[in-house]
Amino acid sequence: MKPKLSIIGEKMNEKTGIRAVMGDIQEVLRDGSREYLNLSAGNPMILPETAAMWQAVLERLLEDGMFPSVISQYGSSYGTDELINSVVRFFSDRYDHDIQKENVLITAGSQQLLFFAINSFCGMGSDGVVKKALIPMLPDYAGYSGAVLDMHTVEGIPPLISALNDHMFRYELNRERFLQRMQGACDIGAVVLSRPNNPSGNVLSEEDVLLISDACREADVPLLIDSAYAPPFPAINFIEMEPVFTDQIIHCISLSKAGLPGERVGIAIGPPRYIKVMEAFQSNAAIHSSRLGQYMAAAVLDDGRLAAVSQHEVRPYYYNKFLLLKDALLREMPDDVKWHLHRGEGSLFGWLWIEDLPVADIELYARLKANGVIIVPGASFFHHVPWDSPHVRQCIRISLTAADEDIKKGAGILAGVVEGVCQNEKLIKNRG
Amino acid sequence: MKPKLSIIGEKMNEKTGIRAVMGDIQEVLRDGSREYLNLSAGNPMILPETAAMWQAVLERLLEDGMFPSVISQYGSSYGTDELINSVVRFFSDRYDHDIQKENVLITAGSQQLLFFAINSFCGMGSDGVVKKALIPMLPDYAGYSGAVLDMHTVEGIPPLISALNDHMFRYELNRERFLQRMQGACDIGAVVLSRPNNPSGNVLSEEDVLLISDACREADVPLLIDSAYAPPFPAINFIEMEPVFTDQIIHCISLSKAGLPGERVGIAIGPPRYIKVMEAFQSNAAIHSSRLGQYMAAAVLDDGRLAAVSQHEVRPYYYNKFLLLKDALLREMPDDVKWHLHRGEGSLFGWLWIEDLPVADIELYARLKANGVIIVPGASFFHHVPWDSPHVRQCIRISLTAADEDIKKGAGILAGVVEGVCQNEKLIKNRG
Repeated sequence: MKPKLSIIGEKMNEKTGIRAVMGDIQEVLRDGSREYLNLSAGNPMILPETAAMWQAVLERLLEDGMFPSVISQYGSSYGTDELINSVVRFFSDRYDHDIQKENVLITAGSQQLLFFAINSFCGMGSDGVVKKALIPMLPDYAGYSGAVLDMHTVEGIPPLISALNDHMFRYELNRERFLQRMQGACDIGAVVLSRPNNPSGNVLSEEDVLLISDACREADVPLLIDSAYAPPFPAINFIEMEPVFTDQIIHCISLSKAGLPGERVGIAIGPPRYIKVMEAFQSNAAIHSSRLGQYMAAAVLDDGRLAAVSQHEVRPYYYNKFLLLKDALLREMPDDVKWHLHRGEGSLFGWLWIEDLPVADIELYARLKANGVIIVPGASFFHHVPWDSPHVRQCIRISLTAADEDIKKGAGILAGVVEGVCQNEKLIKNRG
Repeated sequence: MKPKLSIIGEKMNEKTGIRAVMGDIQEVLRDGSREYLNLSAGNPMILPETAAMWQAVLERLLEDGMFPSVISQYGSSYGTDELINSVVRFFSDRYDHDIQKENVLITAGSQQLLFFAINSFCGMGSDGVVKKALIPMLPDYAGYSGAVLDMHTVEGIPPLISALNDHMFRYELNRERFLQRMQGACDIGAVVLSRPNNPSGNVLSEEDVLLISDACREADVPLLIDSAYAPPFPAINFIEMEPVFTDQIIHCISLSKAGLPGERVGIAIGPPRYIKVMEAFQSNAAIHSSRLGQYMAAAVLDDGRLAAVSQHEVRPYYYNKFLLLKDALLREMPDDVKWHLHRGEGSLFGWLWIEDLPVADIELYARLKANGVIIVPGASFFHHVPWDSPHVRQCIRISLTAADEDIKKGAGILAGVVEGVCQNEKLIKNRG
C-alpha cells in the first residue's frame, strides 16, 4: 500500500538518477554475499592524527565541567556563541575580509545548509515564476538536485572541455554562455557550485568566481559556494586556491572531510541578509544543530589544530591517492582506447572520461559491478540538463577514499572491462 | 536590501504569530538591561542524575575505542544500527506491539522529524488540492504552523471546555466535529497532535487516540503523535498514560526533555510505509543525524537508565513544579476574577485561562513584560483557526522550567497585573 504524498513528498521520494544508483550501491554492499572493491564514495578514511584531535577535544569537554550546559540546553538557531566567535576570529585573522557574527550560521551539516539555502532562494516565486538554481559549469554535485523541493529547479551550463597532455583533461567555465543566461534573467534564484568540484576535482579560478559573483550581484541573487573540500579545512585542494569573499557569496563549509562526518556540523559564512533567511528556515525545520559537535569544532578552530591537520594530514593523504589512481590508470588502461582523467585540483574523487566508450555510463557501472568493482556512473552529475553531447554518458567517478590496493586492483579491473566493451564494439562494427 | 525569496523562503521567514512573539522574547532576554522572571519556555533544568547519566555514557565511548568509527564515518539515513536495534529491543520488551527495525527512523531532533513528516504528507498534492495537517483538538504546539512549507496547511478543531472544581478546567476532544471533518475528506494529509499536549498539559485518552486513529485509517492518512513529553521517556506525564500503537500512528519521540536537547536526537516509530518516506526526505535534506547523540541514546536505552531517570527524576521534578504553580495561583490570584488552570496531566507547562480578561493575551504579555515577567501569549496555539470564541485570546502559557522562587514571584506579579486590568475595565464600564 503506497501512502499518499504531497508534491514535495513525491519529489523527496523520487528514486531516479543518483538516488536510484546510490540505492542500488547500498543494497549491493549490504547484501554481503560477495566482496566488492568499493570505489563509489564510501566513508572518508579515519586518519590517525585527525581522529586523535577530535578525541582529545571531547576528553577536554568532559574534564572542564562544560558538559552539562553543552548537552542539556537548547541554544540559538544561529549556533553556539562559542563556535560563531571562533569562526569569526579564525576567518578574520586568516583572510583580508571583515567577518562579523552576523555573517555566520551553524547548521547540521553542509547538506542541510544547502537545503535551507537553495529552497529559500529557488523554487516557485510569488510571481508564479520558478526560480532556478543555476550551476555555472557542469558537472556538479548530484545532491543539489536531491535537495530542491520543487521539481525542475536545477539548471546547468555545459562546460568547455580542454584537452591536456598525458591522458588528462580539464573543464573550463563557458563564460559567454553563463553570462548570456544570467543577463536580465528573472528566473534565477541562486547560483550554486562546488569548489573544489565534486565530481570532477576541478577548481574554478578566482577570476571565474569573481566573474560569477559579479553576475550574481547584477541579478541580485546569492552565489552558494559549496566548500566541502576547500581550504582552510579540510583543505583537500591540490593546487593553490583560497576562498573568495564578496557581498554575494555564501560559503557552505563542512567538517565532514576533516574527520567529523558523524557529527554533522556545517558552517555558512555570507552576507547577513542571506544568513538571516537561512536561520529562520533552520529555526522552523530543525531548531539548531548538535551542540557537542559545535563545542568540538570551536575548540579545534581556536587552537589551530583543525587547519593544521587538514594541511598536513588530510590533503597529502588524498593527493597521494589521486597520484596513485592516475599512475594505475596510465599503467592499466588499454592503449587503443581514448580516455582522459580530469586534472586533479582537489576533492575526494578521480573523474574519468572514456571518450571511446561504446556503452552508457550506467551500463559500464553494471558491468563493473558484475566484476566486483563499484564506481558511480557520471550522468547524474549533469543534472538531466539537455546537453546534446555523448560526453554526458562517458564519465565515471572514482572515489579516493579506498585503500591503495583497492584503487590499484580496481583500476586493473576497470581497464579490462573497458577493453572488453570497446573490442566488442569494434567486432560488431567490423562485421557490419 | 531585502533578498528575493521563493514562496517557501517567504513562508519560512514569516515573522508573525509565535515567531514574532518568540523573536521579541529572545530580544528582550538578550538585551540584558533588566532582569526578567522567564516563564516563557527557557531551557529545561539540568537535573543532576540525568546529566550524570549522559556524561557517563560519553566517558564510556571514549574508553571503549568506538570513538573514531562513531565520529569519523557517515552512516545510514535511517540511523545507526546500534540505536535502531536498541529502540526495537526496548519498545518490543515494554509494549505489546511487534516493532521491527523497519519501523524506526532516527532524525536530528523531533522538530526535524515533524518537518519531514508533515511536509511529506501535507501541502499541495499532485491533484491540485492542498492537503491539510489537521489538529483534532486545539490548542496545540505552535511549531506545527512553523514547520509547514506551504501556507494555510494547518487546520484545527476547537475543543470542548469542561469546567472542574477548584479553578481547574480540561479540554475535551470534540469527537463529533472531528469525525465530521474527516468524513470522506480528500483534503486531509495527516492528523497531528501532541500527547501530553503542549501548551495545555492535556493528555488525550487512549479511547480518543484510537477513535482518531480509526478515522485516519478510513482516510488512509498517518496520525503523527508528538510524544515529546510522553512515557517511556521523558515521561513527563502526571496521570497514567501509555503510547498507543496502531498501523496509522507515527510516534515522534524526543530526547530533549530527558536531558539531551543540545544533541538533537529524534526517534520516529511507525509503519514502514511512512518511515520509508521520511527517510528519503532526510537523506536529501540532512543525510543523517549526529552519531555521537545516537551512540549515547543507544547506551542509556540498553541499560535502562533513560527510562529510570525519566520516571524517578524528570517526572517528579516537573510534577512538583506544576503543584507549586497551582498553589501559587490559588494563593495569589484575585478572588473576583474568573480564572482556570488546565488540569496538569503532563508536559512542561501550566496553561492558564483567564475568563474575565478584558484585554487580549498579547496585551497581557506586554503588560507582564513591562512588570518583569515573560510568559507566552496563547493565541498562536490556536493556529489562526477561525473559531469565534473569546477563549482564544484569554489564555497564556507558563513554563514549569523556571526556579521555584521565580514561579512563585511570577504568579504574584501576574495576579497583580490581572487584577489591575480587570479593575480598570470595571471602572470604565461603571463610568459608561
